Amino acid sequence: MTARSTFETELEQLNLDLIKMGGMIEEAIAKSIGALETSDTNIANEIISADRTVDDMEKQIEARCLRLLMRQQPVARDLRAISTALKMITDMERIGDHAADIAELTIRLDSNKPLSMAQHIPEMADIATQMVRACVKSFIDNNLEQAKETIARDDEVDDLFNVVRDELIKTLSGESDAEKANQAIDLMMIAKYLERIGDHAVNICEWVVFYDTGLHKQTQIM
Amino acid sequence: MTARSTFETELEQLNLDLIKMGGMIEEAIAKSIGALETSDTNIANEIISADRTVDDMEKQIEARCLRLLMRQQPVARDLRAISTALKMITDMERIGDHAADIAELTIRLDSNKPLSMAQHIPEMADIATQMVRACVKSFIDNNLEQAKETIARDDEVDDLFNVVRDELIKTLSGESDAEKANQAIDLMMIAKYLERIGDHAVNICEWVVFYDTGLHKQTQIM
Repeated sequence: MTARSTFETELEQLNLDLIKMGGMIEEAIAKSIGALETSDTNIANEIISADRTVDDMEKQIEARCLRLLMRQQPVARDLRAISTALKMITDMERIGDHAADIAELTIRLDSNKPLSMAQHIPEMADIATQMVRACVKSFIDNNLEQAKETIARDDEVDDLFNVVRDELIKTLSGESDAEKANQAIDLMMIAKYLERIGDHAVNICEWVVFYDTGLHKQTQIM
Repeated sequence: MTARSTFETELEQLNLDLIKMGGMIEEAIAKSIGALETSDTNIANEIISADRTVDDMEKQIEARCLRLLMRQQPVARDLRAISTALKMITDMERIGDHAADIAELTIRLDSNKPLSMAQHIPEMADIATQMVRACVKSFIDNNLEQAKETIARDDEVDDLFNVVRDELIKTLSGESDAEKANQAIDLMMIAKYLERIGDHAVNICEWVVFYDTGLHKQTQIM
C-alpha cells in the first residue's frame, strides 16, 4: 500500500472506533436511566463495569491519533480530522463517566420509585441520549446541519434541569426526613450529570463544526 | 531565525500563555469563594465577565497549538508538548467555567452567611485552588513528582465533598422551608463544582505525566 492509502485506512479505522465508542456511551446512558427507573442494581453494576471498556477505547483512540500525528505528519483537512477526534474522545469518555456516576447513585438510592419526586429525569435522559447519538453521527457523516441542530437542543435539557430542581425543592420543603433529603440530593446530582452530558454533546458538535469549517466557536483557528 | 529557533520561540510563547491562563483560573476560583463567603455580588459579576477572557485564551492557545502542528510538523517530545497543551486547556477552560458557575450561584443565593450550613466549602476551595496552581506549575517546570503528588490530593477534595453533603442533608432534614431547600441545593452544586475542579486538575496532571513519560494513565501511547 502507498503511504496515502495506509493513512486512509488508518483514518477509516479511527472512524469505526469512534462509531463503536459512540454506541457504547449511548447505550450506557439509556441503560443507566432504565436501571434508575426500575431500581435494578444488577444493570447498574454492569454499566459501571462497561465504563472501563469505554475508558480503554479512549486510550486506544488517543494512541491512534497521536501515532497518526507523529508518523504521517498530516496537513489541512486530515490534521483537522485527527485533532477533532482527539478532542471529541475527551467529551465522549466524560459522558461514559457520567452514565457510570448515575449507576452508582442508583445503587446508593436503593429505593422503590425514586423518580416519583423527580418525574422529568427520564425526559432529560431521552433528549441527552438523542444528543449523544446525533453528535457522533454528525461527525461520521460530516453533517454540519445536524451538528448545529444538536447544539440548539441543549436548551431543552437545561430547561428540564430547572424543572427537576423545582420538583426536588418542592419535595424538600416543609416535611422532609433525612432519608428523603438524601434521595433528593442524589436525584439532583443525577439531573446535573444529564445536564453535563448535554454540554459534552454540544462540545463534540462544536468540534464537528470546526472539522467542517476550520472555525471553533466562531474563531478561525486553522 | 532558523526554523528550529522560530519553533522554540513559539513553544516558549505557548508556555507563557499557559502560565497566564493558569493564573487567571486560579484567581477566579479563589475570588469565587471569597465572593460566596461575603455575599459580594459585584465580585461575582466580575468573575463571570473575566471568564470570557479565559475562554478567549483557550481559543488563542488552541489556535497556536494547531498552527504549530500544521506548520512545524513536530515529532517526539515537541509533539508531546503540543498535544499536552491542547488537552490541558480543555480542563483549564472548564475550571474557569466552574468558577463562573459558582459566581452565578452566589448571585442567586443572595443570602447572609450561606456557608453556615456548609462550613467545609472554603476548605474544599482552598485545596482545589492549590491543586490548580500545582498542576499548571508541574507542566511548566516539567515536575513529574509534583504532578503525582497533586493527583493524590484529589482524595481530600472528594472526602470533603461527602462532608459537605452530610452537612446539607442535616440542614434539610426535619424542618426545612423552600428558601432553605433552595439554598442547600445551590450549595450542593457549588461543592460539586469544586469537586469537579479537583478532577480537572487531576486530568491536567495526567497529561503532565504523559508529557514526561509518554504514558497516559499507565498506557504507552507515544
